[in-house]
Amino acid sequence: MLVVQKYGGSSVANAERIRRVAGRVIQERDKGHSVVVVVSAMGDTTDDLIELVGGITGSPPDREMDMLLSTGEQISIALLAMAIQDMGSPAISLTGGQVGILTDDAHTKAKILKINTDRLQKELKQGNIVVVAGFQGIDQHNDITTLGRGGSDTTAVALAAALKADVCEIFTDVDGVYTTDPRVVPEAKKLDLVCYDEMLELANLGAAVLHPRAVELAMQFGLPLHVRSSFNNNPGTLVKEVDDMERKHVVTGVACDYNVAKIGLFDVFDRPGIAYILFKALADEKINVDMIIQSAMRDDRNDIAFTCPQGDLKKALEVVERLQPEVGSEGFTSDDGVAKVSIVGAGMVSNPGVAAEMFEALYQEGINLEMISTSEIKVSCIIKAGQAEQAVRALHQRFNLAGRV
Amino acid sequence: MLVVQKYGGSSVANAERIRRVAGRVIQERDKGHSVVVVVSAMGDTTDDLIELVGGITGSPPDREMDMLLSTGEQISIALLAMAIQDMGSPAISLTGGQVGILTDDAHTKAKILKINTDRLQKELKQGNIVVVAGFQGIDQHNDITTLGRGGSDTTAVALAAALKADVCEIFTDVDGVYTTDPRVVPEAKKLDLVCYDEMLELANLGAAVLHPRAVELAMQFGLPLHVRSSFNNNPGTLVKEVDDMERKHVVTGVACDYNVAKIGLFDVFDRPGIAYILFKALADEKINVDMIIQSAMRDDRNDIAFTCPQGDLKKALEVVERLQPEVGSEGFTSDDGVAKVSIVGAGMVSNPGVAAEMFEALYQEGINLEMISTSEIKVSCIIKAGQAEQAVRALHQRFNLAGRV
Repeated sequence: MLVVQKYGGSSVANAERIRRVAGRVIQERDKGHSVVVVVSAMGDTTDDLIELVGGITGSPPDREMDMLLSTGEQISIALLAMAIQDMGSPAISLTGGQVGILTDDAHTKAKILKINTDRLQKELKQGNIVVVAGFQGIDQHNDITTLGRGGSDTTAVALAAALKADVCEIFTDVDGVYTTDPRVVPEAKKLDLVCYDEMLELANLGAAVLHPRAVELAMQFGLPLHVRSSFNNNPGTLVKEVDDMERKHVVTGVACDYNVAKIGLFDVFDRPGIAYILFKALADEKINVDMIIQSAMRDDRNDIAFTCPQGDLKKALEVVERLQPEVGSEGFTSDDGVAKVSIVGAGMVSNPGVAAEMFEALYQEGINLEMISTSEIKVSCIIKAGQAEQAVRALHQRFNLAGRV
Repeated sequence: MLVVQKYGGSSVANAERIRRVAGRVIQERDKGHSVVVVVSAMGDTTDDLIELVGGITGSPPDREMDMLLSTGEQISIALLAMAIQDMGSPAISLTGGQVGILTDDAHTKAKILKINTDRLQKELKQGNIVVVAGFQGIDQHNDITTLGRGGSDTTAVALAAALKADVCEIFTDVDGVYTTDPRVVPEAKKLDLVCYDEMLELANLGAAVLHPRAVELAMQFGLPLHVRSSFNNNPGTLVKEVDDMERKHVVTGVACDYNVAKIGLFDVFDRPGIAYILFKALADEKINVDMIIQSAMRDDRNDIAFTCPQGDLKKALEVVERLQPEVGSEGFTSDDGVAKVSIVGAGMVSNPGVAAEMFEALYQEGINLEMISTSEIKVSCIIKAGQAEQAVRALHQRFNLAGRV
């Protein structure tokens, strides 16, 4: 069996933890498996490197940032390979370039184009545990690139797919994926199984255990992921394609995202092209618009509302103000004291009453819904941020998530 | 004109110094020159990395040490390239592998086999200042190697030779090469010019400004080196081939090395093969033997004495003790309270009285000579360590080195 494991920065934050990871990796190999381990930079390394840049320049070029930051993972892989060898098993470390991860040249946010697995296969055949630097690759000019946010997860999934691995284990500091944030709802249950679609929604909604980009890639290749704790041996959450037969629950989890701002435009012209003008301008400014709602209030006028990350609010308001004459809005409003509460579940598709049940639960708590957006496997509501925890608890109870088996 | 500059770890120890180096490099480019800059790891980086290893293993594999330590220079080049760009000049950083430095696979002490300058030439042609990581290369397996001691000096000289650079400037924290250590002899003079042979002896004798390996390489390619301070614009010391006509002084400098231990064997057998047995055994233990003296004291018995670095003394004594029956020595002695004082000068070859003058000067100071060794351009004496400074001062005065122009 071929196993790909990924350990995040907190799992390799110091020498003792690196030795613990080494023990865990060796345990897997001693079962007779081939093992590839992907690691991130140690704990604070990346922050320390970024701090160094602060003394040099306010606008570091992307190529040189990649040259700099990629050293973080290189340090981790060398130390982990040393630890594994010290504990008696053969190991070799490989950088993103050495492992054959070819990316485009979009420095600091590169995309993987191709993986040449020759070196990897050779090292595995020689019986080595292969320790790979996550987050990095090289482009066609032999320049070092980094993959941006979620990079190490993406490296692990991409390698597992390229090697046709039997499983890809994502080790993290929690036990797996939960029905909701256990800090908010102590009864929250660990999920044994979620399907890709659900995981993708949960990942996008801020359940930070796994990056959406990695989930997408796993889905694309039908690769099972196992999200589990690096601090114990408990089984975690399996992410894979799930048959309808297996679905026991309509709603799988409740998620909450506080990084949301809401903008509303009143009385824009009711004619073709208005939405295009507005959202094209926002996209040009690289503002990540999430929910969009348009509603005809009167005969020839519309209201348009949308949400974006709080960091983009200022830029978004500038765009909205600039476009006022063009879209004809009589005024606009914004609010960053809101949160997005969502229920996720692949079973919703065939259960049309789920959204109504959600609205009822929130109504009973006296929570006002400012915006609503639905997809096939998700219902999201924008509410006041101060009521978000109350909403999460109410929904977790309403859909009986603590009673899951 | 094509200039290769090399800056050591103390010259790039923090953000402020990196920006100072950037300014200096840009100054050179603004004269219309093409500039390649080789840098070492920042100040303590290498020590910090080695400390990390201490928590992981007592016997790190060489390949993984190279993987780890090479990150030090990679951090420096990224930051220096950022600083240069921030100050308005185009720059690009390249690792040893990217710059095409192919080495053998002797990890931690690799030798450069070949340099493929394609990428370098391309970047220079595009007007970039090229910032190269010293001390590192890749082997034929695409694995990262490091060059061991004096590695960054060697990288700079090798690149300058491969590019047929007009000059290779070695920036350090002193003004150049001195007639002797200015901390011991305040009248010591900076040398404007030394030839390769002299520099090689001075470098080997502990004048730490330039590694002997880099001097050898420069000599082999007839490449002029300019040793100068990174803290001021003073002209430093030029190291190059010197015509006899130019030699004004018989003795160029006085050097002193405290890292010496002396071992003597009494009454070894006087028959062929004895020296071979002894020094082969020492070489097998990788003990770096420096001076060797054999003297026939009586008819059929010999004494043999040799010196080695103090760190090798224990191992050397073990070898000597083990071989006692085989070489027939009646006893042995050792002393690590000694120092080696040397005078160096290419003019000695044609001035046979120089050694005698040295002995006279030391005799007048009441200094006893324990061992003597001579080469064409050097005379070295082993004396008590406590008298070494006195000896250096006396020799500096005797050969009128403070009066040089």
